[in-house]
Amino acid sequence: MLVVMQAHASQADIGGVCGKIEALGFRPHIIPGAQRTAIGITGNPGAIDPCEFVDLAGVAEAIRVSKPYKLVSREVKPDNTVVEVAGVPVGGADLVLIAGPCSVESREQILASARAVKDAGAQLLRGGAYKPRTSPYAFQGLHEEGLQYLAEARAETGLGVVTEVIDVETFELVERYADCVQIGARNMQNFSLLRRAGRSRLPVLLKRGISSTLEEFLMAAEYILSEGNYNVILCERGVRTFADHTRNTLDLSVVPAVQSLSHLPIIADPSHGTGRRDKVHPMALASVAAGASGLMVEVHPTPDRALSDGFQSLYPDQFRALAADCRAVSELLSRRRG
Amino acid sequence: MLVVMQAHASQADIGGVCGKIEALGFRPHIIPGAQRTAIGITGNPGAIDPCEFVDLAGVAEAIRVSKPYKLVSREVKPDNTVVEVAGVPVGGADLVLIAGPCSVESREQILASARAVKDAGAQLLRGGAYKPRTSPYAFQGLHEEGLQYLAEARAETGLGVVTEVIDVETFELVERYADCVQIGARNMQNFSLLRRAGRSRLPVLLKRGISSTLEEFLMAAEYILSEGNYNVILCERGVRTFADHTRNTLDLSVVPAVQSLSHLPIIADPSHGTGRRDKVHPMALASVAAGASGLMVEVHPTPDRALSDGFQSLYPDQFRALAADCRAVSELLSRRRG
Amino acid sequence: MLVVMQAHASQADIGGVCGKIEALGFRPHIIPGAQRTAIGITGNPGAIDPCEFVDLAGVAEAIRVSKPYKLVSREVKPDNTVVEVAGVPVGGADLVLIAGPCSVESREQILASARAVKDAGAQLLRGGAYKPRTSPYAFQGLHEEGLQYLAEARAETGLGVVTEVIDVETFELVERYADCVQIGARNMQNFSLLRRAGRSRLPVLLKRGISSTLEEFLMAAEYILSEGNYNVILCERGVRTFADHTRNTLDLSVVPAVQSLSHLPIIADPSHGTGRRDKVHPMALASVAAGASGLMVEVHPTPDRALSDGFQSLYPDQFRALAADCRAVSELLSRRRG
Amino acid sequence: MLVVMQAHASQADIGGVCGKIEALGFRPHIIPGAQRTAIGITGNPGAIDPCEFVDLAGVAEAIRVSKPYKLVSREVKPDNTVVEVAGVPVGGADLVLIAGPCSVESREQILASARAVKDAGAQLLRGGAYKPRTSPYAFQGLHEEGLQYLAEARAETGLGVVTEVIDVETFELVERYADCVQIGARNMQNFSLLRRAGRSRLPVLLKRGISSTLEEFLMAAEYILSEGNYNVILCERGVRTFADHTRNTLDLSVVPAVQSLSHLPIIADPSHGTGRRDKVHPMALASVAAGASGLMVEVHPTPDRALSDGFQSLYPDQFRALAADCRAVSELLSRRRG
Repeated sequence: MLVVMQAHASQADIGGVCGKIEALGFRPHIIPGAQRTAIGITGNPGAIDPCEFVDLAGVAEAIRVSKPYKLVSREVKPDNTVVEVAGVPVGGADLVLIAGPCSVESREQILASARAVKDAGAQLLRGGAYKPRTSPYAFQGLHEEGLQYLAEARAETGLGVVTEVIDVETFELVERYADCVQIGARNMQNFSLLRRAGRSRLPVLLKRGISSTLEEFLMAAEYILSEGNYNVILCERGVRTFADHTRNTLDLSVVPAVQSLSHLPIIADPSHGTGRRDKVHPMALASVAAGASGLMVEVHPTPDRALSDGFQSLYPDQFRALAADCRAVSELLSRRRG
Repeated sequence: MLVVMQAHASQADIGGVCGKIEALGFRPHIIPGAQRTAIGITGNPGAIDPCEFVDLAGVAEAIRVSKPYKLVSREVKPDNTVVEVAGVPVGGADLVLIAGPCSVESREQILASARAVKDAGAQLLRGGAYKPRTSPYAFQGLHEEGLQYLAEARAETGLGVVTEVIDVETFELVERYADCVQIGARNMQNFSLLRRAGRSRLPVLLKRGISSTLEEFLMAAEYILSEGNYNVILCERGVRTFADHTRNTLDLSVVPAVQSLSHLPIIADPSHGTGRRDKVHPMALASVAAGASGLMVEVHPTPDRALSDGFQSLYPDQFRALAADCRAVSELLSRRRG
Repeated sequence: MLVVMQAHASQADIGGVCGKIEALGFRPHIIPGAQRTAIGITGNPGAIDPCEFVDLAGVAEAIRVSKPYKLVSREVKPDNTVVEVAGVPVGGADLVLIAGPCSVESREQILASARAVKDAGAQLLRGGAYKPRTSPYAFQGLHEEGLQYLAEARAETGLGVVTEVIDVETFELVERYADCVQIGARNMQNFSLLRRAGRSRLPVLLKRGISSTLEEFLMAAEYILSEGNYNVILCERGVRTFADHTRNTLDLSVVPAVQSLSHLPIIADPSHGTGRRDKVHPMALASVAAGASGLMVEVHPTPDRALSDGFQSLYPDQFRALAADCRAVSELLSRRRG
Repeated sequence: MLVVMQAHASQADIGGVCGKIEALGFRPHIIPGAQRTAIGITGNPGAIDPCEFVDLAGVAEAIRVSKPYKLVSREVKPDNTVVEVAGVPVGGADLVLIAGPCSVESREQILASARAVKDAGAQLLRGGAYKPRTSPYAFQGLHEEGLQYLAEARAETGLGVVTEVIDVETFELVERYADCVQIGARNMQNFSLLRRAGRSRLPVLLKRGISSTLEEFLMAAEYILSEGNYNVILCERGVRTFADHTRNTLDLSVVPAVQSLSHLPIIADPSHGTGRRDKVHPMALASVAAGASGLMVEVHPTPDRALSDGFQSLYPDQFRALAADCRAVSELLSRRRG
């Protein structure tokens, strides 16, 4: 159910509708729009009668939402959401580049990476301090030490920090250092983690699970929004198929598909999406052409010595070339859409 | 690295090897065998020199393990592991039937279910009190109330309880009531949860992820064993493919594949593995014929009124027929292998 | 559209309905049933008005068929079809075993194979004289020479011959020697070949394509039936998924799924379905338990010297054990079904 | 085996090597290069000793080819192949647009389509006269009548004609009218058809099978080249995955993957690759950005009345916009690479 307010509705009108929703035992979500405010309702086990709302002051209409997701739906909020990460708008006119190593390996490595990606044109720094690894015996990250190095890299370069959070226990610690918390593909349906992210003050970058349908992806985002955090960036990072020429199959059609169903911004990760260094540049270009609002790219000062995923990490010079080409395509398409 | 002790090695010899391993900063795992004891080593970042161990008292040999998984590997422990759940051996000669509803919905429902499945031949009761659901607005389970009803059902019927655990926060609570904790497909790579399960005193039923390779599946189990809990039961429950005549594709070939690579028992879940009531009976039979040590089957007293997954739940009479047919096939094949 | 005749309808009544169908420019298909005859109509671009038929002599009812496939549908023919191959009924009470090498490699090899599989309990001999190979440079079969050796093997052992046909050009030649023509997975949607098979006097064994849905599989069979050949045996042989522990993923749930939608018999091929010798026995058992009417199994007198697919071919002794176990399960389940 | 000639080798030298290859019972393939000529050898059952060739006049070296495909390999021919279709170079500097309806439905429809797509910027006309359809009862194309209309459209507009060939029987007829024969996804491993295409004088557009690996795709092309036809254009048209927001998943990473392994040009078909009209434009742009040499796009004057695939066909105006945007991206990237 979505209660759409009249254009001239007052704060008091909005408060009245929210009060009514709460009195019914449900939860109101205020969704400001360019034209008018809408109020989503969650927590209702079944359908609600629109008549409960249509006579309240300032209400234009009460409409049933036809999708299983509500708050992420473009039906509910027609305007694009722009998520600010450390002052960088994601989902706006400009292409956003998030770059850095797979893992934070040392103070020197992350500082060198941050300088290199900033110099090459990145606006945000990525790097994992908590790494979900298939093997319990593989390098699991530097944990808080890694977060401190990321903060140092931010202090020096001014780049906002995007870093992965892997469980509820360490969430608060990550929140203390990050500008945006990333939820990885393996945790896309870790619902306890999603709920915790929904109670964070930070924006959340949510990666699509390796065999997630579009609906499951949007429902995972809905978990976060349903707890009150509307700052969610979606990220396509490849799905698992029979194809063996890349590590994953980057499913770029999900970019326009998300954009037609949801107001949330979507970016692409051509590094995990291909798993091969020489495929990152062409697939980054393809992502931008398909309409992605940004890219997340693995860059390492010395990929051959990386502790994880070095074979898919770009050299800084390769990233510089990628950034320039991608911005050129982005700008061309902006002008043409213009 | 695996240190294999001589057949006549004493407890002191074993203690000596463990002490040496700990002195090197690693972690010993004692693996008792029918013939002789082996000691696995984890926590080592790289290869260890076998010479460190071959001269110690009671050591037969020190061998490198060629697989990325160690403790779950049949190389390391040639004998089948039999996991006891509330006195029921899983992985032994007899087929184990775990049955019950998808979710605990009420005291009456779970008691009726427990009586019905016991009467029809189940040895263990399943039922979820914490439900991971794709939608944040779907029924999420009765939580502790549900656990209490399960305990009541156990008290009345004597059936041990297998129930899902979805996060670290509620793990201890579930442990208090359950006889075996289940980790669901979506959490197969929730490594924090796996580690927590590795520190549990309860056996763990680990379901294969919806797009997990065999190696990832075994590595997930390795996480649990690496923390010291060797009582892990694996469960095939269907993978995601293009095929649309069933909800998932039950990949029964993983049963003999696991059995050749690992000593851990593996069972099958034909309810989630097909998602269609009329396919459960034939695929249960197929699972047993493929060599599964047990079955996990959804049974509901009134499937059409179930709050979740009713369309794949059997009526009690259907389960009775399934149990009889499956035991007959299991016994026939035991005799023939005999 | 399906015109169902009354139980006492005469041949003249049936002829009258067929004449009317032809007069409308469509094609009648007479489908004899245990109780009464039905007449399928194909060739109509859209729906036909049932009123055209209900008043004709001997007509019980004219019903719309709700599936895209008609002639293969159980709606149209409720009784199981039993296809005779060289006197062996496929789809009846007894399990049928079709065995032999992947390719006919020499006179000696196919004769040795035929003797071995007959001795071990096979009723039909398989072996390819025309091999569709991924590489143009791989062994493509002995062609007519291979067919002659197959005929010789039949003459000596009495086993009927099932062999693959790969194109329309060589179809007639294969027909001259075979008792049943096989259409391989790669040709499941080679519609010209299917149509040609529909004009053959021989039964057709149609293998499921490597990424075929159930509906596509049944539609491929429909192509054959629509040309007048109703003797089609379906065969599950594994589908392509991300799973890498077997060459293909044997999707046994398609066995009961076919049986509920179609009257055609379905068998399974655990050799191609797993691609690994040590998985053939357990998956053969699973196939039988799932309800398959027969098995197609690769057996070679000396697998290690096979020109194709030797790694998945059984040794004759392994096949003997498989045959005995599978028959035992088949008989047990027949008795229990009663 | 590849015999690489010296830069100054004469025609007589080349003839000498070919004669030697034929004398050994194999088949020579002359592969002209920018720097020097190479001669591929096929038909050899096993490895050939390089010594057979190194001493012949004009031979620079004889090297083993490490891939299972030879003639399509970039190892064998480092320079890009440019295939001319009715005077239009495919695989050169300029983006090639092939557009038109799924099927030729009538004289008026194909003429209107041809005018529209030419006007909007297409260089080649597509349209099927022989349609492989999942159902035997669906529209199968106008056959020779359709070919005649295509020829008429070519006569009027000057657009070369690309049309599908579905079997060996009708191949010659299609050849008589077409400028390029297309082999569809379902026939990618119809080896008899591939061999026939290899004996055609026309260029061949080969579509990737719906679950084809990269290696299988290249091997299918190898079948064509091995018969002597080196004018093959590859086409990515989507693969089958679990994802359900598009009809197929367009796997654009195969574009750079083909380009690194093979000298053959590769284009993309975003119409079949998405199956949804509103995804065609973004995925066409993505294809071009990923490096595709051209696009094959379904355009229909009145999509809602199309006999096949209307839901994925663009309106002429949509194609005009697509063509302009795609050319702009192509030119931008050419300049930047340049």
